[in-house]
Amino acid sequence: MSTTVIILAAGKGTRMRSNLPKVLQPLAGRPLLGHVIETAKKLNAGNIITIYGHGGDQVQAAFADQEIKWVEQAEQLGTGHAVQMTLPVLPKDGISLILSGDVPCITPATLQNLLNATQNTGIGLVTLTLADATGYGRIVRDNGEIQAIVEHKDASEKQRQIKEINTGIYAVSNAKLHEWLPRLSNDNAQGEYYLTDIVAMALADGMSVASVEPELAFEVEGINDRVQLAALERQFQAYQAKQLMQQGVHLIDPSRFDLRGQLTVGKDVRIDINVIIEGDCELGDNVEIGAGCILKNTKIAAGTKVQPYSVFDNAVVGEDAQIGPFARLRPGAKLADEVHIGNFVEVKNSSIGLGSKANHFTYLGDAEVGSGSNIGAGTITCNYDGANKFKTIIGDNAFIGSNSSLVAPVQIGNGATVGAGSTITRDVEENCLAVERSKQFAKENYQRPQKIKK
Amino acid sequence: MSTTVIILAAGKGTRMRSNLPKVLQPLAGRPLLGHVIETAKKLNAGNIITIYGHGGDQVQAAFADQEIKWVEQAEQLGTGHAVQMTLPVLPKDGISLILSGDVPCITPATLQNLLNATQNTGIGLVTLTLADATGYGRIVRDNGEIQAIVEHKDASEKQRQIKEINTGIYAVSNAKLHEWLPRLSNDNAQGEYYLTDIVAMALADGMSVASVEPELAFEVEGINDRVQLAALERQFQAYQAKQLMQQGVHLIDPSRFDLRGQLTVGKDVRIDINVIIEGDCELGDNVEIGAGCILKNTKIAAGTKVQPYSVFDNAVVGEDAQIGPFARLRPGAKLADEVHIGNFVEVKNSSIGLGSKANHFTYLGDAEVGSGSNIGAGTITCNYDGANKFKTIIGDNAFIGSNSSLVAPVQIGNGATVGAGSTITRDVEENCLAVERSKQFAKENYQRPQKIKK
Amino acid sequence: MSTTVIILAAGKGTRMRSNLPKVLQPLAGRPLLGHVIETAKKLNAGNIITIYGHGGDQVQAAFADQEIKWVEQAEQLGTGHAVQMTLPVLPKDGISLILSGDVPCITPATLQNLLNATQNTGIGLVTLTLADATGYGRIVRDNGEIQAIVEHKDASEKQRQIKEINTGIYAVSNAKLHEWLPRLSNDNAQGEYYLTDIVAMALADGMSVASVEPELAFEVEGINDRVQLAALERQFQAYQAKQLMQQGVHLIDPSRFDLRGQLTVGKDVRIDINVIIEGDCELGDNVEIGAGCILKNTKIAAGTKVQPYSVFDNAVVGEDAQIGPFARLRPGAKLADEVHIGNFVEVKNSSIGLGSKANHFTYLGDAEVGSGSNIGAGTITCNYDGANKFKTIIGDNAFIGSNSSLVAPVQIGNGATVGAGSTITRDVEENCLAVERSKQFAKENYQRPQKIKK
Repeated sequence: MSTTVIILAAGKGTRMRSNLPKVLQPLAGRPLLGHVIETAKKLNAGNIITIYGHGGDQVQAAFADQEIKWVEQAEQLGTGHAVQMTLPVLPKDGISLILSGDVPCITPATLQNLLNATQNTGIGLVTLTLADATGYGRIVRDNGEIQAIVEHKDASEKQRQIKEINTGIYAVSNAKLHEWLPRLSNDNAQGEYYLTDIVAMALADGMSVASVEPELAFEVEGINDRVQLAALERQFQAYQAKQLMQQGVHLIDPSRFDLRGQLTVGKDVRIDINVIIEGDCELGDNVEIGAGCILKNTKIAAGTKVQPYSVFDNAVVGEDAQIGPFARLRPGAKLADEVHIGNFVEVKNSSIGLGSKANHFTYLGDAEVGSGSNIGAGTITCNYDGANKFKTIIGDNAFIGSNSSLVAPVQIGNGATVGAGSTITRDVEENCLAVERSKQFAKENYQRPQKIKK
Repeated sequence: MSTTVIILAAGKGTRMRSNLPKVLQPLAGRPLLGHVIETAKKLNAGNIITIYGHGGDQVQAAFADQEIKWVEQAEQLGTGHAVQMTLPVLPKDGISLILSGDVPCITPATLQNLLNATQNTGIGLVTLTLADATGYGRIVRDNGEIQAIVEHKDASEKQRQIKEINTGIYAVSNAKLHEWLPRLSNDNAQGEYYLTDIVAMALADGMSVASVEPELAFEVEGINDRVQLAALERQFQAYQAKQLMQQGVHLIDPSRFDLRGQLTVGKDVRIDINVIIEGDCELGDNVEIGAGCILKNTKIAAGTKVQPYSVFDNAVVGEDAQIGPFARLRPGAKLADEVHIGNFVEVKNSSIGLGSKANHFTYLGDAEVGSGSNIGAGTITCNYDGANKFKTIIGDNAFIGSNSSLVAPVQIGNGATVGAGSTITRDVEENCLAVERSKQFAKENYQRPQKIKK
Repeated sequence: MSTTVIILAAGKGTRMRSNLPKVLQPLAGRPLLGHVIETAKKLNAGNIITIYGHGGDQVQAAFADQEIKWVEQAEQLGTGHAVQMTLPVLPKDGISLILSGDVPCITPATLQNLLNATQNTGIGLVTLTLADATGYGRIVRDNGEIQAIVEHKDASEKQRQIKEINTGIYAVSNAKLHEWLPRLSNDNAQGEYYLTDIVAMALADGMSVASVEPELAFEVEGINDRVQLAALERQFQAYQAKQLMQQGVHLIDPSRFDLRGQLTVGKDVRIDINVIIEGDCELGDNVEIGAGCILKNTKIAAGTKVQPYSVFDNAVVGEDAQIGPFARLRPGAKLADEVHIGNFVEVKNSSIGLGSKANHFTYLGDAEVGSGSNIGAGTITCNYDGANKFKTIIGDNAFIGSNSSLVAPVQIGNGATVGAGSTITRDVEENCLAVERSKQFAKENYQRPQKIKK
């Protein structure tokens, strides 16, 4: 019987002071709700039911590619009311995890523990033990068995000493949800339907209530404002950084490392301070990433060294390449092994062959460069005529002189040489020298311009 | 009756190990004393009297544009002696706040609370409750009323248990200052005149001593060395960052954000790691500032995205522009809506019209660019002839080929085209193509230079 | 009698998950073992004996230039066994410090204290008092005298209350080591030879055991995995940053500062966030280093301001220069006083004279520039012909127009001018104007290329 995951995602998040619904606020580059959905998928949830409310169109649009059942909670009448909205689409049997779209860091491991613990009880919850539990609903136990959840304001002095709290994350048998949810009452000070009441119903039915604690407290932290969001971002980043270090990554400063996606690493990868990794990236053995580099959807093979302040986006780099500092690889940059890309060089939608070099101030756009070629400083592929983009094709072992302009479409043959400062508009044959240049003219005793008096 | 603010700023700050007087050391880009003066101005102080000593010339020069009464304390004979120096210029009535030039973070709110509390008593002070008060002067109370301030070394064992301390920030009626200050004695171990003694005088006169606590402890922290300065810088930055987050700014890492001035923000502004904001900056709705950007006195309108490592100084940017990475906008850069400025592009004292683009390796200095124009990679406005600067004027919908040099003064008309690699010294008419180029010459079977044996 | 330093460096460090032996993992840019060797040298150790095991070849190769006696521990049979390996080369008299290659931060001061304390006892150790000592070997004292070291697992309930622990760092008379080490036994649960047992032997001999505590706890922290390595890196960096601040350096954020080597500073040096200093660097009075700069083996004289994101490697800069942002000085860059190097400028193996300027997009490689010259934007020294490198020599007061290519070997005389966009292949005489340029050609009513339909 597969698991159903119910996600509460109807809140507005007024305290975020944003036009974006709260569950779309990003943590580590992904919407809060996206983290929860990802977790649901890792649990192989058969059903994901998401309850939307404020900004529902935006929320649904953000996850249009996901298989999700959307149910609306038109009015915000409490967590119990929210889950009631799922009843028309909730399976009759199996078990549901009830999660919050603004509690993004709960792990599959903790939820699997919860599911396991709930197998025999039909209801379970995630609890947390805090040093100071003031304000939270306390877990009252007798002989280890949960007897009640008591809200802080209703708690006796003795109950307020309890450190174990309810996190609001539940696993419940669907049969029981169908039985209990319709019986929830809003006969309380706030006039809301509380999901917590199902615990009392379970206990009244003589059922045991299972519980698990998360490995790390940040798993159950919720987000209500930007200050909390930033704090959780740091905790999540620290968690990810620690995992990478345990895999053997040498992070020079884990508190100055941001992973906004997935990073796959080989052995002895070294990442200097203030590096940002976005999307899906892969770094081979002995890769070194210099300070301040930003890598997005990029794959770098073993032994390559990237110097500081290089920015890569959808690039592929071979082995033993040397790149940067201040290099920019844009989408479609494809560098073979041992390529050198130096400072202030931009590569877009271009392939560069084995051992070729472009070490200074070069723009390679829509180009194909063979192997063993040297692209001089200041070379620009003029790939755009104002309306269309064209290709520049450079062969193997070519030498492009500095400050050259290669006006595409144009081909430079194998072994060809382009003289410095040339604008090349016609193809250059193999092993030819091509130059576009005038005679150097000299004027003696030249009178330099003088400062104009104003 | 307006408030007088007296600021003690005579200390040398030997432990800073600096040639700069201590009160000129910068916190968040502004001298310590500047913070206190700014606070005084926010309280609409009628008079600001600053007591100078070490480096008095430098201190006065740094605030030459401020309306301040300067009084000298030639010898350092204690805080009471310092305030005595103000008597010749101190009004006879009204109330004075006595602040320290090296306690920069005291807030107007706390001081207003102090002034309010002092209305009925004629003397009040800011106190602070610490977990460990060792070393500080303790506030001795009876029935809530201040009875004495006892220095640590003079305190009984019981008094040393007191956690409430004197911060040295006072509000006192000027009439009383005129009465008490001349009566201060230096009959003590250090031979100094202590301002604290006025509290004893007030109590001896049967007066009540009012007190308030600051909202945040860092408000009353003083600076004696670089370690304390750096620690307070971080606390002040964290305080500012929190305020911005509460306004709705999405700071990816508040501990890697530096605001050295004022930042005005719209909704849903996103600021990535390691951004520095200096002077007066303004960011419109949905503006995104990439990692490592530095903005000084810059205004960016709604919807503009700035990619990482862009440096702006006195620039103005329109809506929905795209800038960076590695862009540099220098003073006088004025970008209209939807302008694109790409990597390794420098703009100085130039205006760029709606939707125009300069995407790579370009220097635009003293230029006016119309709308819809495309400035090719490697274009340089040659604005300087070695003695004078001249303007380059480019019309609408112009296309400047890559690696062009535009030798100012020069005009490129609307719809004009400049061929790649051209050096343009004469004006280009509307809709003309201008090219400066030689014939491309080819030499077959060119023998490339060989490695010279040494 | 000179001191012998014995360093245990045989461990593999499996938990680092690295191909590098643990003692070669870098902390602040230097291998862990390198820190310990450096400390030994500061103590003027007469002998440094290092015990290697895993990756011994790599370890020895990394310190091939150091005067070290290497002894092998072929099997890992405990710390006592490791030190036994030194007996064949250990002097008969004098005293030995026994250190660990993975405890890199122990200071010469602490070790000198230990040596002093051990003068009269013949054996001493470094202990540490912890808030929570669980798991560590406790120092049992009576009347202040060490009575025993008891491992946690063997400790009584009362002994477990002891907060003082053994750090494993010893000073022992060599005579005693020769006597005790052969008597060590492996008759224990692990079957290992424990060095700790020599303390029991000393006490059994009726000797006193001296002890000292380090000034800072991080001195005795050992490294077993990447998480610990990163944590110690931060502690070490904080320690170094504090020392610099105490010398008077204005560090804007000490937690975002990395020193991987030695930094010598003048007065009132200001270092902004995220600066990295590598190797041996020297900064004169009033030098300012902007955010994100990276300096390696670089010397900058008084009054020079470096703007953000400048990267220097083996460069020398004079007084009152202005550099950056985004400047790159590569090995052999030698800038005189008052030189200006602007954005996106690269200088390699070149000297630049007093007050000369290269403010934008310039590559100066293998060049000599005189004083008072102005190198225009986009100038490139074409120093490489594909096989050889040649020099460009520019005199005093020369003016190089923008986008020029200077094809080396070439000389530009004093006072010479090069027209913008010129490719200069022949020498330019003093005070000459040299231009390489064609006639500007114009075509009216030029039909711009249209978007090709695909």
